[in-house]
Amino acid sequence: MSKFLADRFNTLDPYIPGEQPLDMEYIKLNTNESPYPPPKAVIEAITEKELEKLNLYPDPEGFRLINKIAEKYNVKSGNVIIGNGSDELLAFTFLAFFTRKGVIFPDITYGFYPIYANLYDVKYKQIALDDDLNININDYINTGKDIIIANPNAPTGIYLDLTQVEKLCSNNPENLIVIDEAYIDYGGETAIPLIEKYDNLLVIHTYSKGRSMAGARLAYAIAQEPIINDLKIMKNSFNPYNVNRLTLLMGEIALNEEKYYKEKHQEIIETREYATKRLKEIGFELTDSKANFVFAKHPKIKGYELYLALKEKGVLVRNWSTPRISDYIRISIGTKPQMEKLIDVIRNLK
Amino acid sequence: MSKFLADRFNTLDPYIPGEQPLDMEYIKLNTNESPYPPPKAVIEAITEKELEKLNLYPDPEGFRLINKIAEKYNVKSGNVIIGNGSDELLAFTFLAFFTRKGVIFPDITYGFYPIYANLYDVKYKQIALDDDLNININDYINTGKDIIIANPNAPTGIYLDLTQVEKLCSNNPENLIVIDEAYIDYGGETAIPLIEKYDNLLVIHTYSKGRSMAGARLAYAIAQEPIINDLKIMKNSFNPYNVNRLTLLMGEIALNEEKYYKEKHQEIIETREYATKRLKEIGFELTDSKANFVFAKHPKIKGYELYLALKEKGVLVRNWSTPRISDYIRISIGTKPQMEKLIDVIRNLK
Repeated sequence: MSKFLADRFNTLDPYIPGEQPLDMEYIKLNTNESPYPPPKAVIEAITEKELEKLNLYPDPEGFRLINKIAEKYNVKSGNVIIGNGSDELLAFTFLAFFTRKGVIFPDITYGFYPIYANLYDVKYKQIALDDDLNININDYINTGKDIIIANPNAPTGIYLDLTQVEKLCSNNPENLIVIDEAYIDYGGETAIPLIEKYDNLLVIHTYSKGRSMAGARLAYAIAQEPIINDLKIMKNSFNPYNVNRLTLLMGEIALNEEKYYKEKHQEIIETREYATKRLKEIGFELTDSKANFVFAKHPKIKGYELYLALKEKGVLVRNWSTPRISDYIRISIGTKPQMEKLIDVIRNLK
Repeated sequence: MSKFLADRFNTLDPYIPGEQPLDMEYIKLNTNESPYPPPKAVIEAITEKELEKLNLYPDPEGFRLINKIAEKYNVKSGNVIIGNGSDELLAFTFLAFFTRKGVIFPDITYGFYPIYANLYDVKYKQIALDDDLNININDYINTGKDIIIANPNAPTGIYLDLTQVEKLCSNNPENLIVIDEAYIDYGGETAIPLIEKYDNLLVIHTYSKGRSMAGARLAYAIAQEPIINDLKIMKNSFNPYNVNRLTLLMGEIALNEEKYYKEKHQEIIETREYATKRLKEIGFELTDSKANFVFAKHPKIKGYELYLALKEKGVLVRNWSTPRISDYIRISIGTKPQMEKLIDVIRNLK
């Protein structure tokens, strides 16, 4: 820490991404990436001709991509903003809106939310999940605070259906409701159609999971136009050229490839059900995940010990020291052979 | 503006990037891009194999790239941080440091500085350039504020030599000195070697201009390790995966291509001198630019009128309504044929 750092950052604990060790080849089931490459058309879009134009700035509006996203969801281009990954859009959201009167979110959720809050001096309150790690919507009615919820939630994978999301919106007319749908492609239904009816709803999607493009950094947010305009003020006061040329192009082409993605989502869902069944046979308890990961604990082995034992055998999963969930490990859904290997390794630990 | 936006952003005026009109082909001399493509080796680095790995997150540390940058400048990897363009690193800098006790910068400089300050509620004071648009270093001694200076300055192109930068550092031991060297490759000398001696110096470089990679979004900052660690706290509390996989790789390969870049810098310098000479012949007054642009005014035509007349003829340049410089236009240095065309168009306006 330098003597030039503003005092309030002295105690800021930054986010710690899932480890990416370089010492050996691991089966990487710790950062919820898709195990499948982007579709061929996305790869083929990056021609020599496109690469030769990298001396030019990207379109700061991302006009073509935004139009295409708008078309997909049957909204207007003014309802869409793009970001350098959803982390950037989440950060803009915390700064623009949640500095107003504070925010509430579950005690167990995406670990970045309290960090954004600390970064921007946002007051926040964490609402405890129930004993089964479910969100109780009634806890989020009329608190006088804005709300952010990951749906499906992370790292539990538990999904709130749209009637519950709508209940949140209709009962909080003066509060902003942000639904972070990073994991919506694996059995959930997006809340985007609700934005027509609710001026207090903001939905955030990423290309990192369901679109196999974590390495390209792309996300978008959809809401009524005034909210999107506010986020554009943040973006244009921070980094107007936030999405690079190649990612803009790949993001656009990817939207033609729904068939490929739907197949891959279905494979992930089937592999998740396979892994769930096998893990239960071995004695694990699992949440009902609608995401591309499972969240599992075993009565006989602590989460951290299991994480370490798996790492030693070349399989990376994720574990948190957070009290209520320290017994669990989160396992990203890889390919079927990767999950077979995982099950095999776990069986042989016993 | 939505009802959810925090009050203090109601009056925030975001940055307006140089226009990118889509109505026709322009000779684009308005955003200081390099007119040359990235070197062949950079283009060839983006193979099908690399694109197929885009399902995986980038290395959040940018380990390989950072090591290579450190090697180039003979510093340690702990002295380097990378960003999604220098705008992102500048934003982190304003938030981390300048919120402490405020910042000073010239009245005529990169137009984004006051916007960052407004975004993060940073107190700032603009110090007037002298009548010839020069920075007087004595104005920046012992003010009790941190300092940010673009060197060469924008949009004047005027360069402070290293003895003056060192004077700033040695006379401000308790203030952070940020030198934004976006345009350092066209005749200036970088202050990076001074970081060994001065714990209050932070130097920011971009790949957007001198490295022909504006479309890839990449920049780096170099300082003593405590300052870099503070910036890492910002990055990891905002967007740990801020630089995408392809850009990390291209940024690394680009560092092998110094010969190509030096040739291109020399061409830009020669074309700048050519354009300067021609413009003077037509009656323009120009600052002594050491950047990849010239800053010029003509006694007989106002800056905005000239901008409009050139746009109508298919040439984009930039003009600001800011009082002291509204008579000027800023012309990015393109290829020799582009500048010949510009001169030709201007001659025919008269």
